[in-house]
Amino acid sequence: MTVYRNVGEVPDPVDLALVIVAAPRVPEILAEIGERGIRHAIIESAGFAETGEQGKTLQAETKRVLEQYGIRALGPNCVGVVNTDNGLSTTDILDEALIPGNTAIIAQSGVFGNILLDKLHLQRLYISKAVTLGNRIDVDESEILDYLHQDPTTQVIMMYLEGAANGRLLTRTLMRVSRDKPVLILKSGRTGQGVAATASHTGSLSGEDSLYEGMFAQTGVIRAKSLNELVEFTRVFSTQPLPLGPNLGIVTGSGSMGALATDAAVIVGLEVPPPSMAVVNEIQKRAPGWMNIKNPLDIGPSGLFEEALSALAQDPAYDMVLAIFTIPHAILLNLKALGVDIAQRFGEIKNLRKLAPEKPLVVCVVGHDDFVDLAAELAGPAHIPILTSPEMAAEALAALWRYRKWKERSTS
Amino acid sequence: MTVYRNVGEVPDPVDLALVIVAAPRVPEILAEIGERGIRHAIIESAGFAETGEQGKTLQAETKRVLEQYGIRALGPNCVGVVNTDNGLSTTDILDEALIPGNTAIIAQSGVFGNILLDKLHLQRLYISKAVTLGNRIDVDESEILDYLHQDPTTQVIMMYLEGAANGRLLTRTLMRVSRDKPVLILKSGRTGQGVAATASHTGSLSGEDSLYEGMFAQTGVIRAKSLNELVEFTRVFSTQPLPLGPNLGIVTGSGSMGALATDAAVIVGLEVPPPSMAVVNEIQKRAPGWMNIKNPLDIGPSGLFEEALSALAQDPAYDMVLAIFTIPHAILLNLKALGVDIAQRFGEIKNLRKLAPEKPLVVCVVGHDDFVDLAAELAGPAHIPILTSPEMAAEALAALWRYRKWKERSTS
Repeated sequence: MTVYRNVGEVPDPVDLALVIVAAPRVPEILAEIGERGIRHAIIESAGFAETGEQGKTLQAETKRVLEQYGIRALGPNCVGVVNTDNGLSTTDILDEALIPGNTAIIAQSGVFGNILLDKLHLQRLYISKAVTLGNRIDVDESEILDYLHQDPTTQVIMMYLEGAANGRLLTRTLMRVSRDKPVLILKSGRTGQGVAATASHTGSLSGEDSLYEGMFAQTGVIRAKSLNELVEFTRVFSTQPLPLGPNLGIVTGSGSMGALATDAAVIVGLEVPPPSMAVVNEIQKRAPGWMNIKNPLDIGPSGLFEEALSALAQDPAYDMVLAIFTIPHAILLNLKALGVDIAQRFGEIKNLRKLAPEKPLVVCVVGHDDFVDLAAELAGPAHIPILTSPEMAAEALAALWRYRKWKERSTS
Repeated sequence: MTVYRNVGEVPDPVDLALVIVAAPRVPEILAEIGERGIRHAIIESAGFAETGEQGKTLQAETKRVLEQYGIRALGPNCVGVVNTDNGLSTTDILDEALIPGNTAIIAQSGVFGNILLDKLHLQRLYISKAVTLGNRIDVDESEILDYLHQDPTTQVIMMYLEGAANGRLLTRTLMRVSRDKPVLILKSGRTGQGVAATASHTGSLSGEDSLYEGMFAQTGVIRAKSLNELVEFTRVFSTQPLPLGPNLGIVTGSGSMGALATDAAVIVGLEVPPPSMAVVNEIQKRAPGWMNIKNPLDIGPSGLFEEALSALAQDPAYDMVLAIFTIPHAILLNLKALGVDIAQRFGEIKNLRKLAPEKPLVVCVVGHDDFVDLAAELAGPAHIPILTSPEMAAEALAALWRYRKWKERSTS
């Protein structure tokens, strides 16, 4: 790598300038960048509007320089972008975060973007593009949404938002984008004190939460209540088709987990109807006497996971299926020691997709961490997400159904 | 191990009989146990009231045998008990699940108990006793609660409940136990369909959820909304003192995580007030110009974690403190490669407790899994729980405060 003494010396071609000097020097550096004929910049430096009056003045001065030279800029107070199509990252990330995927990240906060890039690949959620916005001196979330709407590798968009740069513009943009690609948003500033916290973070005014609640409902946005929910819901949205109806079939190795998932599903608007008679009869043939052939279908220690799952996945009574795997870890280790094929015990997760290509299928594993890893292995490259919370799994499936209904209403 | 042909042949002393024969043979085996003079039994066999009319008849018949011989029994349809005091386990569990701790489990479902025993030790939550109740032919949750109330090694009780065996008795018992030891309950059957699911699981009638909601509020029970919440809240209750007030101080490496935690805390009734002037001045001395000395206190990349945490933990403005650790993992790996002491960067978590022995302190790590493990290592044997969700951490602290207020009201 060659280091130059000033911007003017850098040879052609230059597509993008990354600015990481101390905040007070940013305007003069941007002027050099403009003189050099560079028209795109990412300003990573912090110390602008988020710090108070002096910072606001500096940000206004910076904006004037950008306008003078016609420079389009991201930031300041961000970590720039990641593009897994061409391997570009303007921030220091792990190689695994560059594995290409179908999910785009828009994060108002640089650290938030970094955190997602560190976490998501561990859960087999891979990224198309990631954009951190910072103080939005120029480019804002609406412009990025429009870009991702057109981006062929992006199928799902997840966003962390503190406040809209322009509420009306964002509403119009979301309405357009949501019709084609689901947008999941985690928004902070739900309380007065949360708003105050965001003001000193990215200098944004988050505004009344009820306005955002209305905006999101109107535009089909899936609003996450927590960071965890944002990630888990996105894992399901990025891998599953949309359900054709609200009917959920549950296969479980534990009656308690089945009951918890049922409660969670019904509370957020799904139906948990009984299996069709043909399916009941089919399972009955092989089931032990103690097994209640209902929904949720508690297979207990029968070992009939594969049969039950395959029957429910193909039952026209269901629009989507949740499989909850449980096994005491000591028993799993014993089975392994005896040479039992664990994949057989839980069925070929990787073949599930073929049984019901049009239905959302989610696996939830509750137990030892090693068992969760094993299930991920069994799922292989098949796009079946392995969640660990039965309630979250049910809620994610319900979010798919709500989004489907919104799409139908908004396009009819 | 010697195997005997029948119960009568087993030599003295026999404290407890474990019954794991097929359900229809249970009454006759219990009669043999009674004849042999054994007065305590755990019936693990399933196939009783949870399976329908025939099973109900069999359970009634079994109950008659128990009464005839004066046998006290747990089950059927359970996996019995674990006692880490003496290393007894009536179910096949990992050795790590027998590490002694201060938390007792009561689970109506055997599998649920097993799942917790597999999961909790991985999060450094250790058990005193675990009891699975099954169909409660004799011993029920109220009797176990009374036992755990007296048990010197049990400080916190976590429970999975589908429905009370006797609602009035449970209310009276919880009222008594909660005054001394916190009881955290996850109850399924919140919806009609959830109730139906529990009926075919442990044969219990869960009843109207609003009745339980009232019972729990009256008796100071901390009700968990999900399995995940039950575990995370219990991790905090089992390690932290109760706060003296509602004021939460937040130190964070990420403004976004600080805002999310603030929202979550305020929504569930905590206050997030500014630091006292003395503390602001003290931190100001060492803080870089861009740092906003507020609450949440976003230290950004200043590296001032230890100073900020120590100042807030000792600030009389706060009754409890939440520390949110974030760092891009690539930077953490670079620091490690450069030989930087990571413990120094985040401060000696294990010394935090000494700074504020009377205040609840929770650490939340958001990022790569290895970073979570590293933080757990830094915390060492100190009783500081490492959570991974900023919202959950705030909600757990709020639950501590609500419990504290209930205790004050109920004992005054």
